[in-house]
Amino acid sequence: MTHESDPAEAVAERGPIGQVATPATDGTFLDVEIDERDAVGYVAVGGGLDADLRYLTRFRGPEDRYAYVHTGGERVLCPPADCVARARRQFDGRIATARPADHPGERAAAVLDSAREADPASDDRAPTVLVPPTIPHDAAIYLERAGYELRSTTAVGEARTTKTDAEIEAIQSVQRAAERGVRRGERILAAAESGAADELLWKGRPLTAERLRREVNAELARGGVSDAGNTSVAVGSTVVTGATGVAGSSDVSEAITGNAPRADGVAHRDESVVVDVAPRGPSGYHGRLSRTFVVDSDGGWERRAYVASEAALDAALGEIEPGAAVADVGREATAELAAFGFGPTSGGNTDSDSDPTEIVHGVGLSRRERPRAQSGATLESGGILAVSPSVTDGDHGQVRLSELIVVTDEGYERIGGGERAFTPRE
Amino acid sequence: MTHESDPAEAVAERGPIGQVATPATDGTFLDVEIDERDAVGYVAVGGGLDADLRYLTRFRGPEDRYAYVHTGGERVLCPPADCVARARRQFDGRIATARPADHPGERAAAVLDSAREADPASDDRAPTVLVPPTIPHDAAIYLERAGYELRSTTAVGEARTTKTDAEIEAIQSVQRAAERGVRRGERILAAAESGAADELLWKGRPLTAERLRREVNAELARGGVSDAGNTSVAVGSTVVTGATGVAGSSDVSEAITGNAPRADGVAHRDESVVVDVAPRGPSGYHGRLSRTFVVDSDGGWERRAYVASEAALDAALGEIEPGAAVADVGREATAELAAFGFGPTSGGNTDSDSDPTEIVHGVGLSRRERPRAQSGATLESGGILAVSPSVTDGDHGQVRLSELIVVTDEGYERIGGGERAFTPRE
Repeated sequence: MTHESDPAEAVAERGPIGQVATPATDGTFLDVEIDERDAVGYVAVGGGLDADLRYLTRFRGPEDRYAYVHTGGERVLCPPADCVARARRQFDGRIATARPADHPGERAAAVLDSAREADPASDDRAPTVLVPPTIPHDAAIYLERAGYELRSTTAVGEARTTKTDAEIEAIQSVQRAAERGVRRGERILAAAESGAADELLWKGRPLTAERLRREVNAELARGGVSDAGNTSVAVGSTVVTGATGVAGSSDVSEAITGNAPRADGVAHRDESVVVDVAPRGPSGYHGRLSRTFVVDSDGGWERRAYVASEAALDAALGEIEPGAAVADVGREATAELAAFGFGPTSGGNTDSDSDPTEIVHGVGLSRRERPRAQSGATLESGGILAVSPSVTDGDHGQVRLSELIVVTDEGYERIGGGERAFTPRE
Repeated sequence: MTHESDPAEAVAERGPIGQVATPATDGTFLDVEIDERDAVGYVAVGGGLDADLRYLTRFRGPEDRYAYVHTGGERVLCPPADCVARARRQFDGRIATARPADHPGERAAAVLDSAREADPASDDRAPTVLVPPTIPHDAAIYLERAGYELRSTTAVGEARTTKTDAEIEAIQSVQRAAERGVRRGERILAAAESGAADELLWKGRPLTAERLRREVNAELARGGVSDAGNTSVAVGSTVVTGATGVAGSSDVSEAITGNAPRADGVAHRDESVVVDVAPRGPSGYHGRLSRTFVVDSDGGWERRAYVASEAALDAALGEIEPGAAVADVGREATAELAAFGFGPTSGGNTDSDSDPTEIVHGVGLSRRERPRAQSGATLESGGILAVSPSVTDGDHGQVRLSELIVVTDEGYERIGGGERAFTPRE
C-alpha cells in the first residue's frame, strides 16, 4: 500500500490553511552532539505521547510507535503505515514509508544504512548511534543487530529545557486557559452560600470537590485545552483528582492527610479549597496554576497557612535568576514556610508525599520536566518553571499557591497575571 | 528520607473512605507465564502513562518512571521516592522503597535478587526474566548486568484484551459521558440557524468546528471524564482536533481530504458534521463514539454516505462473535461501503489515511489496543471493540458512525444506547 497518491498530500504542499505556526526545532543541537560524540546519527523510538519525539518532530503520533532518525544532517520520520499522510502534514523533514509490519527499530536501522552507503567517508568500524537511555529495548536490539553501537544521550531533554519564543507563546496560551479555569472555580466559590453545618451550597445543592473539579475542567475545555486528567480540587482534608484510578460517575476522593476524607467531599465555609490545574494545549504544552480560596474565613489556620504560602512563593521567586540552583529555589520556599512554623509538602498535583525539592520543576511538553532539583540543575534564561509551595495539615487540609514563570537574563517574568485572592471574588 | 511515618499511611490501612472499587488484576496470568517459560519473574518499567503498568498496578504514577516486579507469586511496586504514600494507597501488593536517585531497573534487579536469595530451589544458571519487548533499554541493561537473561513476553497485552466485569463497567461509565458529550454537539446543531451563505449560527455567532469541539469537551468534563485531546469535529472537508500539534487559542484546522479546509471552519446547512470522541475516565479507561449530523439536508451525497455508513456499521456488527477475525469484521464494513459505491477511510480519530482494517480495534486503557487486525487477531468473549466505518469525499467531507461493543458468547452487546440520528435532535 502506498500513500504517495493520498489526496491530503496536495494540501501538505502549501500547508493547511488556517493552521497556526507551530513551535518547532530544526534539531541543529543534534548535529553538534552527533559530531562531538563521533557518532553517525541519533535514533528515537516511541509512541504519540513521547515528549522528546513530539519535540523533535511536531508529529502527533498515534498510540502506535514510530521512529525518528537524525543522520547526515537529515531529519527522517518513520511513521506507522496508516499515518503517513498526517505525518507529511505535521513533519517538515523526510518521511520514510514502509510495510505496516516493519518494526520501527528495523526501519531506523535501514535509514542509517542508506545514509552510510551514500557517504564515501564512512569506514568499517562499528558505527556509534546516539539514543535516549529509555529507547525501547526491542528497537535497541534491532539497531545493535544491524551493527550499530548504541550510546545514550540526554541532549534532547536538555535542549527542551530552554524554550524558544514560540514555545513560550504556546505555554502562555495554555496558561491563559488555566487562569480561566481556576477563575471559574473561584467564581463558583464566591457565589456559594453557607447551608446547614457550614456546608457550601451552589445552585441549591451541596458543593462537592468533584462538582467543582468538573466545572473547572469544563471551563478549561471551553478555553480549548484539555485538563489532561491533572486537575485536582481539595476541600479541607479531602482531595479529588482526575487521576485516582477510580471509575464511575460517583464522587471520588482520597485523604491528603492522616485524617479520613469526608465521604461526601462537600466544601465548607472557613475551609481551604485548593484548585490545581495543569492543562495540556493542542500544542502538547502544559500550563500550571494552583490557587487556594477560603469562603467566609474565621482567620485561623487557613489564614496563617495562606500568608505563609504567599511568603514562601514570593521568597522562592526572589531566588530565581540564571545560574541559581533549582534545589535552592525550593529550599528558600521551605525555609520561609518553616519561619512561619509550617513544614513543607510536595508541589505535585496528586501527591501527598513530602518532597520539598519538587516545589520547583520545569514545565513544557511534559507536565514535569527539566530542570529538576534532584539532578542538581541550575536555571538558564528561557527555562519555564512552576513554583508551588504548599502546606498540609491533618486536621485543616491544604493550602497551595503556584506560579508559572519564565527565567530571563534579569531574573524572571510571570506567565499570566499572577492574581491571588484568599477570599474568592465574584 | 523515609515515608514510613507519612500520615497518609494510616488511611491506606483501611482504604480511603468514599473510594469506589477499582478494576484490578491479581496478575495470576503472570504466574502461569513465568512458570511456562521457566523464568524467575516478570519486570516492567515505565511512566505514569504506561497502560500495561497501569493495568498491573492500578498505580497512577507520575511522569517519572517506576518499576513493577512479579516474582515468587509476589507483586512488588518500586515507585518514585516522592510517590510512596500515594503508591501505598493505590497498589495492593508490596512497596519497595529506595533512595530517590536509584534507577528503577536497578531497583527491579534488587527485588529479583532478594527473591532468589530467599528461594532454596534457585540454582546458579543465568536466570530468565520476562519483560515487555518495549522495556526501556537502560532498565534492560541494569537487569542484564545483574545477571538476568531477558526474554520478551506479550502476556500483559494479551491479558488486557479480555475485560473483566469491573473493566467493562469502567468503560460503560466513560461511554455514558461520551454519549452526553456527543449529544451536546447534536443539540447545538439542532439549535443552530442558517445565516448568510448557508452558514450555521449558534447564539448569534457562526458555529465553527472549533466552537463545537470545545462545547463537546466541556460536556465531557462535566461528565467527569477527560477529552484526552482525542475529540475531533469535522465540518464538510475541515476537521479540528485537540491533537493537531498547533499552539494557540485561535481555531485550528486541517483538511481531511484533497480540498483545502475553509480557513474559518464554519459549519453549513446541508453539510456533514462529524463529532468523534474518545474520552478517558478517571479509571484510565477510554470510551469511543462518533456520530454524523446534517442540518437541513438536501438529501444528496451526505444522505447517501450516511445510509452506506449505517449499513456498513450494521454489517460489521453482524460479523462479531467469538472466533471471528478482527480483519474480517472490518472487511465486511468495507464490502458494504463498496456495494453502495463508496471507498473506505480509516477508523482513526485524527487521521485521513486509508487503513480499512482499523475500522475495528480494541479499546481499554489505551485508546487503540488489542485485538487489532494487523496481528491476525480473532475475537474472544469479553473483548471491547470500537467499530467505526467512515466515508470521505474531497468535495463533500466525511461521514463516520462508530459503535462500542463488548463481545459475548452469543455475539455482542452494545455499550451505550446506540442511538443514531442523521438530522440533529433537540
